[in-house]
Amino acid sequence: MKIKTPVISLLITTVIASSAVVIANEPVQPISPVKVINLAQVELGKKLFFDPRLSKSGFISCNSCHNLSMGGTDNLKTSIGHKWQQGPINSPTVLNSSLNIAQFWDGRAADLKEQAGGPIANPGEMASTHTLAIDVLQSMPGYVTEFKQVFGTDKIDIDQVTQAIAEFEKTLVTPNSRFDQWLLGNKNAITDTELAGYNLFKQVGCTACHNGEALGGTSFQKMGLVKPYITTNKAEGLSAVTGKDADRFKFKVPTLRNVEMTYPYFHDGEAATLTEAVDIMGRLQLGKHFSESENAQIVAFLKTLTGEQPSFLLPILPPSVDKTPKPVPFD
Amino acid sequence: MKIKTPVISLLITTVIASSAVVIANEPVQPISPVKVINLAQVELGKKLFFDPRLSKSGFISCNSCHNLSMGGTDNLKTSIGHKWQQGPINSPTVLNSSLNIAQFWDGRAADLKEQAGGPIANPGEMASTHTLAIDVLQSMPGYVTEFKQVFGTDKIDIDQVTQAIAEFEKTLVTPNSRFDQWLLGNKNAITDTELAGYNLFKQVGCTACHNGEALGGTSFQKMGLVKPYITTNKAEGLSAVTGKDADRFKFKVPTLRNVEMTYPYFHDGEAATLTEAVDIMGRLQLGKHFSESENAQIVAFLKTLTGEQPSFLLPILPPSVDKTPKPVPFD
Repeated sequence: MKIKTPVISLLITTVIASSAVVIANEPVQPISPVKVINLAQVELGKKLFFDPRLSKSGFISCNSCHNLSMGGTDNLKTSIGHKWQQGPINSPTVLNSSLNIAQFWDGRAADLKEQAGGPIANPGEMASTHTLAIDVLQSMPGYVTEFKQVFGTDKIDIDQVTQAIAEFEKTLVTPNSRFDQWLLGNKNAITDTELAGYNLFKQVGCTACHNGEALGGTSFQKMGLVKPYITTNKAEGLSAVTGKDADRFKFKVPTLRNVEMTYPYFHDGEAATLTEAVDIMGRLQLGKHFSESENAQIVAFLKTLTGEQPSFLLPILPPSVDKTPKPVPFD
Repeated sequence: MKIKTPVISLLITTVIASSAVVIANEPVQPISPVKVINLAQVELGKKLFFDPRLSKSGFISCNSCHNLSMGGTDNLKTSIGHKWQQGPINSPTVLNSSLNIAQFWDGRAADLKEQAGGPIANPGEMASTHTLAIDVLQSMPGYVTEFKQVFGTDKIDIDQVTQAIAEFEKTLVTPNSRFDQWLLGNKNAITDTELAGYNLFKQVGCTACHNGEALGGTSFQKMGLVKPYITTNKAEGLSAVTGKDADRFKFKVPTLRNVEMTYPYFHDGEAATLTEAVDIMGRLQLGKHFSESENAQIVAFLKTLTGEQPSFLLPILPPSVDKTPKPVPFD
């Protein structure tokens, strides 16, 4: 026994090390499993994420534009807000958003918690106010009880609301895509065409920006690096946050996880298909004209990035009571 | 052994018969368990129910106005339709709607299947057409495969779509409310006040219309029987279907199941609270002025009618593909 044990240990160590080496050599990493710190917050945050009473109209919830049935997006060029206002920018996916360096296309929110408060009070989105949203929640015994269980106080505040929503959003990772299975050593998980697409993706330099666990989300880059990007969209990106002219048209690089589900593409939603998006990215960011078959290979690779979608029971919301402030859908 | 067996049988028979008698003597019956005929249709129908791509905008699904997180309603006076149009009538709950004699407030659809096609093609609601909705579904390999599994054909049609949605909706029953537990013999399931409310509910004649498993849904009655109902709402009810003057202002009696969750009340959504609804019903339908405590008793009883809400995993929808007709949220 004394002789055998070290051998087995060594064997295990070698396998792990070898597997780690394979992954370490790739610019893309598998998605780590969910690290949920507070399950009670997650359950509360899930209700809030689905609750349209956080909007002035009582009709729009977080899930309206970050629809978890549809890749965490609304699949529209730009979103529909209060009274059908046309949003200024494409709704980014909430899936794997915990891996982002910052939130929103221009990074104006440092993290998910800070982000969650934005749309609630944005007149063009949910059009409520933090005060009104809290009044609505505080009116309902169902919510008061749950907030007390989670945060230990009878008094609900916006900090608790955004904390719970953010905690729920942290669970929205999508592990075990076919590509992750390949990264972890299952060489049959992707086809030769898909692998060729990945190799091309690396070779031409897509991974300069689309790398790491999320294949993006970790840097701001200028849209239109080699050639200018022509759009009628008025968003100027990071410069709106930093005030620096040098940051004009720099946007957060979007994750490519589940990209098959998160159409249309770019901050203005103008690329309807992956084929179009890959073509534009090649020409404008890399100065590279992909042939039809190269484009198809990269698109095939991108479709291997669809992971396991969040799986949970549709939350049932506490009913409003007589004193709950009424929604105002029409003025 | 030969002696005991008949005794036990007799005992069981007596208990069952006795239990049956208790229920039979009440004008309200417990909700029967779901009778699901076709599980594959249910799963497909669930996806369709949550799919906003059945609307012109790509933003409105069945679940938008019949939100299963909120009692199968939108909790608005009247609904929000395509381009934020104000709907003409309060969105009735989809919960237990399989128990209705007919669908819509005016009964213009014979059953759930016939109903399901309406909102998709209504310019004020989802604003699509059956042709467009089918083109959208037929474009997606994910749906084509599932329709083939369920209906055995490569060609999707509106008949299959509405059949699957209706089959899903049949599962949306809410058994095991506290009141049903009481009906089934658990005398501690409701309080004395709630029981007093039920007795009053029967005594004054509410059960003339609100009876059976759903406490409603089985007849059309004139809104404003004893005194006229004053409203700015233009709906005229059953007469729009029959063409008979005698049917003016006759509406389908709504179910009272889960009524705590299905506010606001009446076809125009003008009663914000149960207290208000009970007061108006008493005066206008029964010529009865409830005292404050009588009203509170009935409201307490009504809140015992909240049953187990539908419990299922949020469906994940097949992604659109390059050829899928694009949503048109803004013209």
